[in-house]
This record gives sequence, C-alpha cells and structure tokens, in this order.
Amino acid sequence: MSSPLSSVAIFGPGLMGASLLMALRERCPNTRLGAWARRAEALTELQERGLVDFVSTDAAKLASEAEAAVLCVPVDRLDEVAQAMAPGAGACAVVTDVGSVKQTVVGDLEKIFQAHGNFIGSHPMCGSEEAGLAAARANLYEGALCVVTPTDISRASAVESVEALWRSVGARTTRLDPREHDRAAALASHVPHVAAAALVELVASGGPAPTELCAGGFRDTTRVAAGLPDLWTAILQANRKEVADGLVRLSDLLQETARALENNDTNKVHALLKSARRHRAAVVDPA
Amino acid sequence: MSSPLSSVAIFGPGLMGASLLMALRERCPNTRLGAWARRAEALTELQERGLVDFVSTDAAKLASEAEAAVLCVPVDRLDEVAQAMAPGAGACAVVTDVGSVKQTVVGDLEKIFQAHGNFIGSHPMCGSEEAGLAAARANLYEGALCVVTPTDISRASAVESVEALWRSVGARTTRLDPREHDRAAALASHVPHVAAAALVELVASGGPAPTELCAGGFRDTTRVAAGLPDLWTAILQANRKEVADGLVRLSDLLQETARALENNDTNKVHALLKSARRHRAAVVDPA
Repeated sequence: MSSPLSSVAIFGPGLMGASLLMALRERCPNTRLGAWARRAEALTELQERGLVDFVSTDAAKLASEAEAAVLCVPVDRLDEVAQAMAPGAGACAVVTDVGSVKQTVVGDLEKIFQAHGNFIGSHPMCGSEEAGLAAARANLYEGALCVVTPTDISRASAVESVEALWRSVGARTTRLDPREHDRAAALASHVPHVAAAALVELVASGGPAPTELCAGGFRDTTRVAAGLPDLWTAILQANRKEVADGLVRLSDLLQETARALENNDTNKVHALLKSARRHRAAVVDPA
Repeated sequence: MSSPLSSVAIFGPGLMGASLLMALRERCPNTRLGAWARRAEALTELQERGLVDFVSTDAAKLASEAEAAVLCVPVDRLDEVAQAMAPGAGACAVVTDVGSVKQTVVGDLEKIFQAHGNFIGSHPMCGSEEAGLAAARANLYEGALCVVTPTDISRASAVESVEALWRSVGARTTRLDPREHDRAAALASHVPHVAAAALVELVASGGPAPTELCAGGFRDTTRVAAGLPDLWTAILQANRKEVADGLVRLSDLLQETARALENNDTNKVHALLKSARRHRAAVVDPA
C-alpha cells in the first residue's frame, strides 16, 4: 500500500517515532521521510540506517518541509516541542501525536496550532516496556488499534489524512471524543498499569518466600510494570482524574471480594470469577 | 534420569495428573504408572495412550499397589478422595498432592493418613488456564518450582521421596512451612488472580469504548482471569484469610495512589513505578 502523503516528518525518534519511520520506509517507498531530534547524533543514526531523507534539529524548519508531522515525544514534552515546531506547521496538511492521553493534549495543541486547524490527536494502542530507537521495529503498528480523536473544530480532510497515515502502516483506526478516549484508556490501560505496579510492591513487601513463588502467571500479570517510570508518571499525571476514579472503583471491588472471603460467601467469589472469565473472552477474542 | 520410585499412582487425570504421567513415562521408563478416576472411561483413555500400567476406579485398591501416590484432584475434593484411598495407603512410601493451598490441606490430610505418617504436601507452581487431560503435556513440570511443605511429624524419608519425584520430572524443589506457603502463595498468585478478574470487570462495566481499547498489555495483565472459576473459587476459599489480608493491602495501596494523583503528588507516583520496576526485575529475572 502506498501512503497518500508525499512526506511525513516525525518529532522524537524513540520507540514510536522510529518504528513509524521503519514502517513507512518498508510500506510506502515513495513517501519522503524526515526527523527532528534535540541531539544531532540521533539524526545521524537515522541517516546512517537509511530511514530518513531530511532531518533538522530545528523543529519549525523540519515542519515546514513535511505534509504530515507526527509528534512522538512523551506527553509531558508535547507542549514544548509543539510550540517549537508550530511556526513551520502552516505547510502541514495534518499534525498529529502518539500520546496515551488525549483531553489535555488535544486542548493544548489545538490552541498552539489554531491558526491552521490541522491538529488531530492520535493514540496508537501499541508499544512495549522497551523504549528508544533500539527497540523500534517496522511491524509495531501492524494490526494495532489507533484511536483518532477529532473535535468540533477539526478539519475533515485532516482527520482523513491522519487515518490514512495510520492505515498505511497496518493499523486499524477508530474515532473517539478526547474525553471519552481518556476515560476508556484509564480503564483499559492506565489503571491496569498502576495495579501491576502495586502487585509487585505487595510481593516485594512480603520477604523472600513470596518472591520465590512468583511464577509465569505473575510474570504476565505484572509485565507492564516494567515500563519506564518517567513516561508512565507523565501519562498518569495527565489523566489523573480518570485514573484516580478507576483506582478507587478497583479498590472497592477488591475490598468487596475480601469481605466476601472473610464471610465465607463462596457464591459471590465464584460469580466474580465466572463473570470475569466470560467478559475477558469477549474482550480479548471478540466473536 | 530414573525415578527412584518403582511405581507412582495418580488420583485424578486432569492437567496436573495426566501431565505427571506423561513426564514420568518419558523420563522414567522403568517406573510403573497407575491411575484412579471416578469414571472408567477416563482410565480407558489413559490406557489407550499407553500412559498407565495399572488402573482402578477403587481408590484404596489403586493406592495399595503404588509406592508413591499423588492426589491431583481440585483442593475442594482432596478430603473425599483421600478418605477413599487411605485404607490402601499403608503400602505407600509417600502420599502427596498438588493443591495450591497447603495449611488446611496438610492439616486435614495428615489426620487422614496419620496411621502411616507418610503424607507430605506439595505445590508445583505451574499450570495453565486450560484444564483436563486434553491440556496435559509432558514438559509441564520442567523448570517449575515445586514447594514441598513438611511438618514436625513428617517422616524424613517420605520428604526425600517426594522431592525426588518432582525432580525426576524436571522441577526444582524448595521447602516451606504450610502456613508460610499459604501467605506467600496469596501474594504471588491468589491476590493477583483476584486483581486480574477485578480489572476485567472494571473494563466491562465501562461500556464499548474501554473494551475496544484493550490491547496486548491488558491481555497479559488479565491472562490468569481465564482460569476455571470452580477451581479458583476453591483455592481462594481454602486460603481466604491470607487472600483477604492481601486484597485489603493491595486496595490500600491503590487508594493511596489515587490520592497522590488527585493531589498532583507526582513524586509519589513516580516512586511507586520506579520501585515496582526495580522489584519486578529482581523477581522475574533474579541475578
């Protein structure tokens, strides 16, 4: 498949950004690829690997040369990089990002790019505990769901361009309101992340025996807790209201189950496990 | 490696029991293998697959023909099967089980077998969400940790026999007091199981958007929630005090994190994620 975009520039060549370059290089050989990074050495590596056609450490300059710009920096650095590239973004048909949080990001970035009306938020639901260019791979986006979050002021052609971009690297797309996205991402991703970290801390607090007994189930249950603390603190912080709400609800459900066990209410415990098993099958393997 | 046991009988040819037969058949060709099941048809299948040399639907009769007896029924059926086979167990050098809970199981089964002093609890830390003979495989125990839980009244030769049995199918063994085992298993396995189920229910309660957003992280985090509700209700019930304690502590930690997010206490959130990441690396990949 060929991308309908003649040129794409990524800002921040970490796991998400570099994987996007690799995927576009492989799938869209006619698309010109560009990259911005704070450090020139990072750009040199991309050039040596043949992943880019144009680079700059000047964000506005790079933006001015691209039809589509994709901000791939952590959510707590989006504002700063967006401010820096905005003066060049008038030439872009679309500017998007890959942040795991959308309400504050879209609000802030729509303001920064309001002169052009071309910012559309994206959240590709893929990634890894690993990070950086070293972990990047051309098939990261294949089969992944990418949530696109247009608002009332989004230009229709920009929404279609960003959807076409994600589809060109093998992702499926869906549209959600930024607020609805954040509520959903809190439950599907951010709260499970905190729960995984808390489960690790619970085991670690118990001394050597619980640690020794951690087997394959524990490894899987807590895999996401291997994620980068800086990156995830910024995500949780940016979605703190929804995450806090979800944590309180999860906590209530655990307390309820603890009481059911204390009261020997086997039916209630069985009902929870049975319902969760059925719901999980529907979530993980939808018919 | 040859098993030092001339004959081993399993009681209940499900995932754990049938996998044990398959492993012994492959690794210890000189050991005679026997099986008890409630239904004769289950035994016929084992015979047709060449996995057993002697079978019976009479538990006491089967026990009387084996040097080692391994109870492989769910924890809420251990008592009943142990009572049925006890009259024949005098001939066994060792009787053990594979239950995920040890304090109540060892207490009850030591009484049942007290005339012989030959019951030693075991908990091989392996398994799967799948169950039954169809899911059994010869390498289930390879590299797994098997916790052996002797008490003051355990005969030393019986403890050594049961450890040799698990090692003969490729498992590592460790010894823990039954009570210490249950406290550790609650933190390493039973509490994470309930947390996984609760995370699924939280997502399911949120409508279609959170369900649509569940990606690979969620699949791994909640994998154990695909386990059989009957089996797991019995495990949680048998270890209810420790599990309830662990759930309350987990719940407190989640509430604390929710408050930190509400108060914009980024340092506290970062400290949790950083500590969990470090602890997980030590648990999952001990140096």
